[in-house]
Amino acid sequence: MVKQERAARTRQLLLQAAAEVFVREGYARASLSTISARAGVSNGALHFHFETKNLLAEAVEECAAATLRRIAVAANEAPGSALQRLIDATHRLMAALHQDVVVRAGFELCAAAGRRGGGPDLRREWQDRVVKLLAEAERKGDLAEGVTAADAAMAVVTSTVGFEMLGSRDRAWVAPETVARFWELLLPRLSRPEVLGELSTRCADVVGPPPV
Amino acid sequence: MVKQERAARTRQLLLQAAAEVFVREGYARASLSTISARAGVSNGALHFHFETKNLLAEAVEECAAATLRRIAVAANEAPGSALQRLIDATHRLMAALHQDVVVRAGFELCAAAGRRGGGPDLRREWQDRVVKLLAEAERKGDLAEGVTAADAAMAVVTSTVGFEMLGSRDRAWVAPETVARFWELLLPRLSRPEVLGELSTRCADVVGPPPV
Repeated sequence: MVKQERAARTRQLLLQAAAEVFVREGYARASLSTISARAGVSNGALHFHFETKNLLAEAVEECAAATLRRIAVAANEAPGSALQRLIDATHRLMAALHQDVVVRAGFELCAAAGRRGGGPDLRREWQDRVVKLLAEAERKGDLAEGVTAADAAMAVVTSTVGFEMLGSRDRAWVAPETVARFWELLLPRLSRPEVLGELSTRCADVVGPPPV
Repeated sequence: MVKQERAARTRQLLLQAAAEVFVREGYARASLSTISARAGVSNGALHFHFETKNLLAEAVEECAAATLRRIAVAANEAPGSALQRLIDATHRLMAALHQDVVVRAGFELCAAAGRRGGGPDLRREWQDRVVKLLAEAERKGDLAEGVTAADAAMAVVTSTVGFEMLGSRDRAWVAPETVARFWELLLPRLSRPEVLGELSTRCADVVGPPPV
């Protein structure tokens, strides 16, 4: 491995280890030496990559934000109605929270008391994405009569934050089956009856753990 | 003030100060000396009431649990349908989260990473309450066709946890107006059409901050 590759690999190990320790112990309790030990690198190597715990947390948040942005880009560029792309995006976010400790740590760091660094605000980015997709559905006339994009977004955002929180203790909350049941409940209220039949509450490329 | 009254008053000051410091700095960062200073009592007095930070956190959680149980008892004993009592209970819980830092701290402590003391699990208690009220609504035939108590409870629990989380950063999320809009969206999907007209999405005795 050339030097640059090795450095990138060490950085990746540190991010993964930091995410695991932040999730298990919380940001405030997590120590840099626990993180370097878990990554199997020296304290010196850790300090070479990240001078402070806050910089390490920001890197974890940035990494989680990159995943969130990939989900957002997919939701923008995929074919199909805005409602279907929103359903698929919630499935992908929940799968990422389930499978990737860096994503989970990123969301938890954003909510941690006593910490507001310069990193991205993941919940706010997710909320903006939900609002945009529902505004598009509203413009196209896909929302049910009397339902506004703002109210629909409130219901979807609060629920997905709840899934994320409850899922951090019990992963069944972020299972695809649970997310599908949520959409089966909510969708008939959000969608115009004429488009309801075209929508699927599942996302074909997301598989995961058993439901709640 | 007699001695016993003074001790109870000091204990109350300490609980309030601890809740404020836990919310502001997080459990792991909070120091007992910051808490005693905020309460305006000596470190000795703090240690007389609470030997460890964990015992203090458990006392905050117990105090929040007592408020939650009062809301639950009101939801059990009030007249009216189970759905209306559930709506009112969500309004009362959100108002408590908004107005009472001890309730807010209690919920946040339950979710804090690296901490699982012997205190009550407030989110679990709330979830059980929601499930029971919706099971009652189901038995009475008040739920819409094809909607189960379990699925309705999932939607209500995830959303209320989301409101709680988002409300800890921006109180407008737990405003009565926001909660009423949530029910206006969800209720037509949960309730049998024949009982919908009898239900109010507001709770007369709850007032609060402006909406989102």
